[in-house]
Amino acid sequence: MKARVFVRPKPSVLDPQGAQVRRALEGLGYREVTDLRVGKVLELTLEESDPVRISARLEEMCRKLLANPVIEEYSWEIEGLVSRGEWH
Amino acid sequence: MKARVFVRPKPSVLDPQGAQVRRALEGLGYREVTDLRVGKVLELTLEESDPVRISARLEEMCRKLLANPVIEEYSWEIEGLVSRGEWH
Repeated sequence: MKARVFVRPKPSVLDPQGAQVRRALEGLGYREVTDLRVGKVLELTLEESDPVRISARLEEMCRKLLANPVIEEYSWEIEGLVSRGEWH
Repeated sequence: MKARVFVRPKPSVLDPQGAQVRRALEGLGYREVTDLRVGKVLELTLEESDPVRISARLEEMCRKLLANPVIEEYSWEIEGLVSRGEWH
């Protein structure tokens, strides 16, 4: 089974990388971009077919390793089953 | 209008960061993860409402700045309009 985990800076947290990319786009003439934030996507292949169990395990992985819950929020989707879930 | 750009290493390109995260997950007991690759998501806010024009501009931004087309592939979605598009 395949899953995607999304990790991004919390809305209250500054994102200097995103601000830098936005300025670079502006310099290239893309002035229509008024905000830009950069996050991560992790594409996982799992040897597990129970989506309930996968969801529980992904939540754990995010808390323990994949995200920094102080400054980041995360969500996930399971291919063909769970579309983009809530942000935690 | 909001859009999301996804950038990831091409399938033929090694992803040392992903391999490292997979090993770390394995060390924590998440042995069901057999493959993991790490990409970027850029969440953009755009002052532009024509989805055809947005798509054309996003494609340009990817080629010029957001992705390295030698080793990365990219796709995008426009909120409420275009779901995940093809990878380029």
